[in-house]
Amino acid sequence: MNANSESEAFTDFTGDAPASGPTPGSFGGRLLRRLLSELGDPPVEFILWSGERIAPASSTPAIKIRVHDRATLLRVVRDPQVQFGDAYADGRVEVEGDLIELIGMIYRGMASTEGKLSLRARLAGWLRRSQRNTLAGSRRNIHHHYDIGNDFYALWLGETMAYTCAYYPSTAASLEQAQIAKMDHVCRKLQLKAGDSVVEAGCGWGSLALHMASRYGARVRAFNISREQVAYAREQAKQQRLDDRVEFIQDDYRNISGRYDVFASIGMLEHVGRENYAELGRVVRRSLNAAGRGLIHSIGRNRPGLLHPWIVRRIFPGAYAPSLGEMMQIFEPSGLSILDVENIRLHYALTLRHWLDRYRAAEDRVRKMFDDTFVRMWRLYLAGSIAGFETGTLQLFQVLFTTPDNNRIPLTRQHLYSS
Amino acid sequence: MNANSESEAFTDFTGDAPASGPTPGSFGGRLLRRLLSELGDPPVEFILWSGERIAPASSTPAIKIRVHDRATLLRVVRDPQVQFGDAYADGRVEVEGDLIELIGMIYRGMASTEGKLSLRARLAGWLRRSQRNTLAGSRRNIHHHYDIGNDFYALWLGETMAYTCAYYPSTAASLEQAQIAKMDHVCRKLQLKAGDSVVEAGCGWGSLALHMASRYGARVRAFNISREQVAYAREQAKQQRLDDRVEFIQDDYRNISGRYDVFASIGMLEHVGRENYAELGRVVRRSLNAAGRGLIHSIGRNRPGLLHPWIVRRIFPGAYAPSLGEMMQIFEPSGLSILDVENIRLHYALTLRHWLDRYRAAEDRVRKMFDDTFVRMWRLYLAGSIAGFETGTLQLFQVLFTTPDNNRIPLTRQHLYSS
Repeated sequence: MNANSESEAFTDFTGDAPASGPTPGSFGGRLLRRLLSELGDPPVEFILWSGERIAPASSTPAIKIRVHDRATLLRVVRDPQVQFGDAYADGRVEVEGDLIELIGMIYRGMASTEGKLSLRARLAGWLRRSQRNTLAGSRRNIHHHYDIGNDFYALWLGETMAYTCAYYPSTAASLEQAQIAKMDHVCRKLQLKAGDSVVEAGCGWGSLALHMASRYGARVRAFNISREQVAYAREQAKQQRLDDRVEFIQDDYRNISGRYDVFASIGMLEHVGRENYAELGRVVRRSLNAAGRGLIHSIGRNRPGLLHPWIVRRIFPGAYAPSLGEMMQIFEPSGLSILDVENIRLHYALTLRHWLDRYRAAEDRVRKMFDDTFVRMWRLYLAGSIAGFETGTLQLFQVLFTTPDNNRIPLTRQHLYSS
Repeated sequence: MNANSESEAFTDFTGDAPASGPTPGSFGGRLLRRLLSELGDPPVEFILWSGERIAPASSTPAIKIRVHDRATLLRVVRDPQVQFGDAYADGRVEVEGDLIELIGMIYRGMASTEGKLSLRARLAGWLRRSQRNTLAGSRRNIHHHYDIGNDFYALWLGETMAYTCAYYPSTAASLEQAQIAKMDHVCRKLQLKAGDSVVEAGCGWGSLALHMASRYGARVRAFNISREQVAYAREQAKQQRLDDRVEFIQDDYRNISGRYDVFASIGMLEHVGRENYAELGRVVRRSLNAAGRGLIHSIGRNRPGLLHPWIVRRIFPGAYAPSLGEMMQIFEPSGLSILDVENIRLHYALTLRHWLDRYRAAEDRVRKMFDDTFVRMWRLYLAGSIAGFETGTLQLFQVLFTTPDNNRIPLTRQHLYSS
């Protein structure tokens, strides 16, 4: 590299070169080089506003990252986890090449230091207190993500409007087929049959509740604190003439009352907060009949750790993905019996790839609904999530359970795989 | 009840009636009545040496327990968990009726107080220190149970000599069929294929290791610290001409070296001790190739709790059955990724019923090998284990896992259920 000669361009470009000390170009370059080194020197080239290029010595860069100004570079180097995402969203850094591949490299680079909660992570945990999932906190956190417009989600979630990991019997399945297959997989695990009473905690736009009623003849009470989602779900129930069998209740899972044959919760646990796991378990336990079954489907981790701080700050306030051991804090204090755990993380990568394809095709419309920063922010979130599941940074656990001494359980899981 | 008149018989029978105070018959009766009340008044009648009968007021007793002397009654009332088993083994109490049903009632009665570690349980935990699973402690503990004679086990374990939970594709399967089906179920979960290298921790009499070599073409190194079992397994390998592909090593799992495609451990974890879970995880992690898979099969619990103290004292010194949350202490510190957990506790009840049937048919021969106390002790252990699995007091977890970022995993579990 020729940092000295390029420092001229740097100075010209930014106009804020310090009067003395190391030349700014080489200083910024050194910082980025150290950052890359901490990530195991992935094949990534930085191109600065000055034209200066920082590339790994040993490999041909597959991805180029353009950094448009010095202030952005300093912010990204100081707090890469949050600032890279923000700078990408604002267009102050741009990525040429496969965004998913880039984030995958970063995740793999970070994996070596995973497992220890760094000082920064602990600080982040402390900061997250303002996002605590109290009754009011949960409403605020859920509103932030899920109430930004059903029309927006309809652009890329597909017909079912299911905003959780689908289940691909084969990789050739369409998104819609895989979402239906997921619902059937869940219903079979729960041995759902006509006349069963179901309570659902966190029902999204209502697709599973409606599916359980229309295809299995179940009676469903479905809880959700997202106003927009409940309004949409109620309208669907009316249109499908299922409103005599499916009731959508705009309330917190902690206010579930009554007893049911089945408890289901698909993609809500991420918003529950670890501090509420034992309470969730008590809610489940008191809601289940003697031979009751339940299933909780959630993003998880191989070991305890916070979600990516940019995701928690910009996308999912208050969110947390537990390890399987942490999930057991729901079930064990209440004595619930785990029957089956399935990790389908590769299915979430497939689901997200379908979502991202549709999202990118709809970016012009998203831009009109919101703005360009929003478009890039959500693109990064979807791409980053794919990388998370493909690198094993994120898992997807379906946990099937029953009451402590229920013997009316299938001998094998064969019934899940007979068509 | 007519305690006064019967106290005469009591005095005649034992010859040790106190000179004053409440009449002994009614005193013993009251103690037993309180014990029954603490267990929720199961339909059980006690018949004392004196002829005195203590029966529940509200139900017709299905089971009669004869107590042959006063000292036994006092011991059983003072410490029922250990003393009942000892008194049954010695013939000082006898059970008329279904032993499994009786223990099932006791387990269900105890379930209401489960989840809290009582003072007694904590004391037991302290006492168990002498059974700690250090390298030497493990050898002592394993020798106690597994080295009492291959001929004895051959009487009731069936041809495979597999001394772990079988897998019944249907309840009509024979014990032998179910043991073979278990091995195939495990091998399919592990995606075992020809040429794979396997390390097995705790291989019993070697049936799985030999099965993996003969049916799947794997190369297996199988560890076990039981001298008798390893001797038997080596002889089997020779007879089956598999000794070029299966190596039985009389050593502790902590001394496993090398790298393998597959790690398997069926029914060893119960003897590992919670204090060694993280170390077991490190052994597993360092033993697995990049795309390595592993399976641990173990008796478990719905929530943390000690095994029945009589079992730990008389049958399995140093044994512990973890909750799934506790099992995660093996995997999470090493970042291993859980793919699949299956709870097959009802299969262990079926397996044990087959074992108990064969055991009872062979009791005369067992009596000749040992003595009558041994015969009754093992009958109680097998019957009690059936009750444990049928009441949900005990679980059986098969936990399938892989390296943190292995993507060479099947998309679904369909392959386990295609024939």
